[in-house]
Amino acid sequence: MECPFCNDTVREAVFAQSDNFLALYNIAPIFPGHSLIIPGKHIESIQNLSDEQLSEMIIFSRKVTDGLLQVFKAESFNWSLQEKESAGQTIAHLHWHIVLRFPGDMPNPGDWYPKIKSNYREMLDSEFRTKLNAAEMKQIVKKLRGYFNYG
Amino acid sequence: MECPFCNDTVREAVFAQSDNFLALYNIAPIFPGHSLIIPGKHIESIQNLSDEQLSEMIIFSRKVTDGLLQVFKAESFNWSLQEKESAGQTIAHLHWHIVLRFPGDMPNPGDWYPKIKSNYREMLDSEFRTKLNAAEMKQIVKKLRGYFNYG
Repeated sequence: MECPFCNDTVREAVFAQSDNFLALYNIAPIFPGHSLIIPGKHIESIQNLSDEQLSEMIIFSRKVTDGLLQVFKAESFNWSLQEKESAGQTIAHLHWHIVLRFPGDMPNPGDWYPKIKSNYREMLDSEFRTKLNAAEMKQIVKKLRGYFNYG
Repeated sequence: MECPFCNDTVREAVFAQSDNFLALYNIAPIFPGHSLIIPGKHIESIQNLSDEQLSEMIIFSRKVTDGLLQVFKAESFNWSLQEKESAGQTIAHLHWHIVLRFPGDMPNPGDWYPKIKSNYREMLDSEFRTKLNAAEMKQIVKKLRGYFNYG
């Protein structure tokens, strides 16, 4: 299967970047603001990053998270990484989830996680239709690019 | 409630440290190897770390994860952070989960996450009894301290 993070289409979802990483809006967000941090190059694992790149990734992630919290007026967030398929990594291109949270968004605050899994299926399989449409996606990415002064 | 990460008992679970962070074994691991990275001082949020401390945390986390993968002969892992109570943070002291994964450990590899939640309850509430006993805990921590050359 072609890597879904290594094609030109994904660039349409990018709203910020650092030297080696991109921030992109998730086309099927669990909650508003759900974004991903990925290396621009096809790197599968966190083990393939240098210490400097690893630092760059988390500092960039925090900066992006701060901006998302402002833009979406969220209160809190989850960060998550799944390393290898047996840990739930379904796309073999390193991606770091930023999931914004809102007071009372779920009856049990810890229940957000299983949604990541189904969310992937929805993103990859066009039979499922909880994706944002092109116009919605464009509008959100435009707003975020404005905030992050990107592009 | 007293912070469970700010007392002397927690030191018994520590098996590695960096300048500002401690690695400790989870007394009620989801899977063997389940550990936490916490700041040594009572810091609630990732927002309260400097860029340098944030870098230190993730580089230390990767180093600890590499060692855990060796010691427990695991294949892969999950990392997770819950920021604030509405995102599922149940202890107001920054803690970064390292959950080791083993092939076939769960029918659905993405199902590990909800266990973190119940796991906290078990850890904090003595009515629940999936905690390791003192001897088991001591043995594991001793092995890890040996590997990480700690203490």
